[in-house]
Amino acid sequence: MGNKEGYLRRLKRIEGQARGLHRMIEEEQYCIDILTQISAVTKALQSVALGLLDDHMAHCVLAAAQAGGEAAEEKMAEASEAIARLVRS
Amino acid sequence: MGNKEGYLRRLKRIEGQARGLHRMIEEEQYCIDILTQISAVTKALQSVALGLLDDHMAHCVLAAAQAGGEAAEEKMAEASEAIARLVRS
Amino acid sequence: MGNKEGYLRRLKRIEGQARGLHRMIEEEQYCIDILTQISAVTKALQSVALGLLDDHMAHCVLAAAQAGGEAAEEKMAEASEAIARLVRS
Amino acid sequence: MGNKEGYLRRLKRIEGQARGLHRMIEEEQYCIDILTQISAVTKALQSVALGLLDDHMAHCVLAAAQAGGEAAEEKMAEASEAIARLVRS
Repeated sequence: MGNKEGYLRRLKRIEGQARGLHRMIEEEQYCIDILTQISAVTKALQSVALGLLDDHMAHCVLAAAQAGGEAAEEKMAEASEAIARLVRS
Repeated sequence: MGNKEGYLRRLKRIEGQARGLHRMIEEEQYCIDILTQISAVTKALQSVALGLLDDHMAHCVLAAAQAGGEAAEEKMAEASEAIARLVRS
Repeated sequence: MGNKEGYLRRLKRIEGQARGLHRMIEEEQYCIDILTQISAVTKALQSVALGLLDDHMAHCVLAAAQAGGEAAEEKMAEASEAIARLVRS
Repeated sequence: MGNKEGYLRRLKRIEGQARGLHRMIEEEQYCIDILTQISAVTKALQSVALGLLDDHMAHCVLAAAQAGGEAAEEKMAEASEAIARLVRS
């Protein structure tokens, strides 16, 4: 994992943002402000996902490809499926 | 807000999922499993956003439209901007 | 419709881009270049959709809301569903 | 390219859908129907993109990875960037 400390820090912040969203709803804050905050959390999650995928391809997939054999094709197919889930979510 | 208790419950779960993601990274779990979990959290957030937007349009925007005047157009424009942020995030 | 000529021009360009994609595949151009072009067409379509939705809310939905009654709620619900489809696509 | 004839057929259909959208706007058809059609075209394009990416990773990226050296890392980085553009579009 490229920068573990960085990811942990980002997830900590995302957890705090989720807690903040809970409070905004509890306090019945203005809908549009809650939506703006949800867009921010979604973007933060997406950015973590793209970083992880990048790391995964640069290390795990590359290593499997170089080792060759069926494992290489499997890793590629697995990464492709994860990408499709990200694009569709 | 349509179903405040429902939203609070969903946000509680999302907060737990974010905490779970933090732990997955801490334990250096398999990248693809983390990505799958991120897709799930993103979908959950998106679904909350669509619910809130639905409520907002059915109540706040509708009321403003019926009251008429500039406020009506403003509410519509504000909702449109929130939608654009959601579509682009 | 806010700016019909503008929309027609944009759709003409999108049609040309789709034809260009067909040619890129026919000529077996480099995959990454085709993907970049697909991202551009998707963004162009999304931008047309957001413009149309904006117009729709500012005119059709607003008028229905001001006329009141069941039609108002129906128009809001219909717009919400269209938004959910856009967010999920 | 995995299934060139299949991709060409799908792009032909997407081009026809874009032409259909142009006509819908020309005839000032109902906004919500146009939006539904735009969602369909966007999904069709996304699906072509995911198929091409899948092919690209299973062939081009895999081959580069197996050949090793800098080209392998470059291909991975290039694919990652294309994925990021798709996820964000």
